[in-house]
Amino acid sequence: MSEARLYRGMRDFLPNFMIPREKILEQIRNIFQRWGYVPIETPAIELLSTLLGKYGNDADKLIYRLEHSDGLGLRYDLTVPLARVISLYKQDLPKPFRRYQIQPVWRAERAQKQKGRFREFIQCDVDIVGTSSPIADAEIIAISAEILNSLGFSNFKIVLNHRKILRGLVHLAGFDIEDELSVLRSLDKWDKIGEDGVMKELDTKGYSAASSKKLFELVSAESGNWEMLANFAKLGDERISEGVSNIQKILEHLSSLGVGQDAVKFSPRMARGLDYYTGAIFEAILPELPNMGSLTGGGRYDNLIGMFSKGEEIPACGTTIGIDRILAAMDELNLIPEAHTNTKVMVAMFSDELATKSLTFAQRLRKIGIEAEVYPEPKKLAKQFAYADKWKIPYVVIIGEDEAKQGLCVLKELSSGQQRIVKTDDAMRILLEVFGK
Amino acid sequence: MSEARLYRGMRDFLPNFMIPREKILEQIRNIFQRWGYVPIETPAIELLSTLLGKYGNDADKLIYRLEHSDGLGLRYDLTVPLARVISLYKQDLPKPFRRYQIQPVWRAERAQKQKGRFREFIQCDVDIVGTSSPIADAEIIAISAEILNSLGFSNFKIVLNHRKILRGLVHLAGFDIEDELSVLRSLDKWDKIGEDGVMKELDTKGYSAASSKKLFELVSAESGNWEMLANFAKLGDERISEGVSNIQKILEHLSSLGVGQDAVKFSPRMARGLDYYTGAIFEAILPELPNMGSLTGGGRYDNLIGMFSKGEEIPACGTTIGIDRILAAMDELNLIPEAHTNTKVMVAMFSDELATKSLTFAQRLRKIGIEAEVYPEPKKLAKQFAYADKWKIPYVVIIGEDEAKQGLCVLKELSSGQQRIVKTDDAMRILLEVFGK
Repeated sequence: MSEARLYRGMRDFLPNFMIPREKILEQIRNIFQRWGYVPIETPAIELLSTLLGKYGNDADKLIYRLEHSDGLGLRYDLTVPLARVISLYKQDLPKPFRRYQIQPVWRAERAQKQKGRFREFIQCDVDIVGTSSPIADAEIIAISAEILNSLGFSNFKIVLNHRKILRGLVHLAGFDIEDELSVLRSLDKWDKIGEDGVMKELDTKGYSAASSKKLFELVSAESGNWEMLANFAKLGDERISEGVSNIQKILEHLSSLGVGQDAVKFSPRMARGLDYYTGAIFEAILPELPNMGSLTGGGRYDNLIGMFSKGEEIPACGTTIGIDRILAAMDELNLIPEAHTNTKVMVAMFSDELATKSLTFAQRLRKIGIEAEVYPEPKKLAKQFAYADKWKIPYVVIIGEDEAKQGLCVLKELSSGQQRIVKTDDAMRILLEVFGK
Repeated sequence: MSEARLYRGMRDFLPNFMIPREKILEQIRNIFQRWGYVPIETPAIELLSTLLGKYGNDADKLIYRLEHSDGLGLRYDLTVPLARVISLYKQDLPKPFRRYQIQPVWRAERAQKQKGRFREFIQCDVDIVGTSSPIADAEIIAISAEILNSLGFSNFKIVLNHRKILRGLVHLAGFDIEDELSVLRSLDKWDKIGEDGVMKELDTKGYSAASSKKLFELVSAESGNWEMLANFAKLGDERISEGVSNIQKILEHLSSLGVGQDAVKFSPRMARGLDYYTGAIFEAILPELPNMGSLTGGGRYDNLIGMFSKGEEIPACGTTIGIDRILAAMDELNLIPEAHTNTKVMVAMFSDELATKSLTFAQRLRKIGIEAEVYPEPKKLAKQFAYADKWKIPYVVIIGEDEAKQGLCVLKELSSGQQRIVKTDDAMRILLEVFGK
């Protein structure tokens, strides 16, 4: 006898969670494919030399290591493996390379208190490698929008900003250029800890209050934000102007791709935590669920992919589709239909002698595409019904002795309790009408 | 600069492999669902206390361990996690519980020489827990057969045997009952190392030559094997008779489920390596690829699932669908269509000014379900064609300056080289005819 226990931060996914997740992932995969993206997968176990030094010192500590003389660790994200793949299989992957990848990653996070923080979670990444065209940025944003639309989110906003604009603003505010990333990491917390919180953090880091105040002035206007973007171009900073014109091109392409400006919002305060972004950055949020965080998030990173490829600069742009967050948000907005099983019909078993009748009837249902299962033992019918009820199977069919002799069956709809005796062929026809695809 | 390297025994899966694999897995999932099976997933990282002592001493050494004070290891198979899940969520999982699970497992195998031996591979398991009805065994076999049929294997055989028959035969041959598993493990190698090889191995293990000879006589008849099965019942051993009648019931149910006796073969030499089987055992082989091994394999194991549940005996039956082997066999039999991308149409980009034309055309294609991608930069058309060619994209559409003015486009089929100038609406219609679903 062993004790059944889970390691903390790990989750078992039972059918009521897995059934909607599988449907959502299939929907997402179809969208990726419709845009010309192809799937890859990489191994869970990578050499530590591949993983270390790519994510920063803090993240390096979160990499799970194996007891192994070769120095092995578990996959931490899908971007470093992508960079390794690009370098290893250059010839087989003509550029621009559009790829998606849906696999779990592992992070040895300490605290398990924050909602939605787990040590194993699925990442779902979509990236286009080998082009710096703003069409790529627009495409990635449009794909994010199409996914959220298709999942039933009617109210999301794509928040857009640009690392070049941020760089220019930080500079204009008087910060030293080498403090840029540190300042941005603090700024990025605005929505979580508020203006005062960011101010305090910048102060603790030892930056001048004047610079912080100036930066806040520059980024704090909230409304009329497309105007604000255009006004940034007048600040006379070359980086900012480059960023503004890049965003404007992306917006133009987005409109060609059917994503209107009402779905997109410019926010000079959105900075994205990761260091490696170099151009446009974007995330999708739900205004009605402000505490949910972003459902998708990504941007352009032109210096990362080349790290395994000698001296080559390989521009890239991509986003993560946050499956866990999306499922949580759908749950909160009641967008997930309750699912216990996909089975539409349980065929009860009356007796061992009549097993064949039940098996062949179920098999006929499957042949016409209706999910059906047979209760495998001739237990009391009440017990069989209780089972169908627990799994919320909509219909039960019983072929008893009397029915069998006359080619009949009992067809019962569990939700209404409605029960009728019909010819087996008619039962097939009725079920096909209800469940036919 | 990092060096791009893979840990030995790990594989990257590129699009040409992933595209057919995703299709195959979707097909398999649909079949599982049609039979009423529901998905679960369990974490990659389990407590060592969950993993150790379940697979035998040799296997325990193959478990990857993490550097972690909690004692953690990587998932080794999907059956022990199933047993843990059954024990943890009893209330939520009414029995019979039909589940499928498709996840990678990891094994620290030493030698990498054997073809198809990897340290990470996907397992695809389907099991029915909580019933000892032979209907369950028949169902699992019928699902295996339906999957192989649906993937295009027309010639497979389901090989069937029974642990009770084997137990009886080993006893009749004069072996001690405690040597049963050891004898069976040797017998199971018959197809790999031949009769002489098995004889030698049994001799090395110190068993009497007389017993081995007697066992070989009992199991060696090859033809007319249903007769042979019936004859076994006359040997007067109760276990054998039980096994025979159980197999006969399974065959009867299989026939109700549409699996004829021509697809099934009784073989008293097939023993399945694993210790835990207690009843019927089965595997699917391809007579035309004798060296491929089994594509699916499973059986009844009535004592395993209860190991996390105090004292409870929980009967179960299931099979593994060997995705790697199946893909290798499909490859060998040319059943996998060459796949480079799912994209049907590449829309070339003529100039920055005409980008909108290309983007909106591609978007219209996607709207009607045709996979389309845009070449994101106005590079030389020859370069854009070379890209489409490398990814084997069937059609290219070009909207040049002259065409754009007149609502026209160039539509080129790459395989034939055929190129025509048509109205964009007509191009849509033509492409819908070719690729419409």
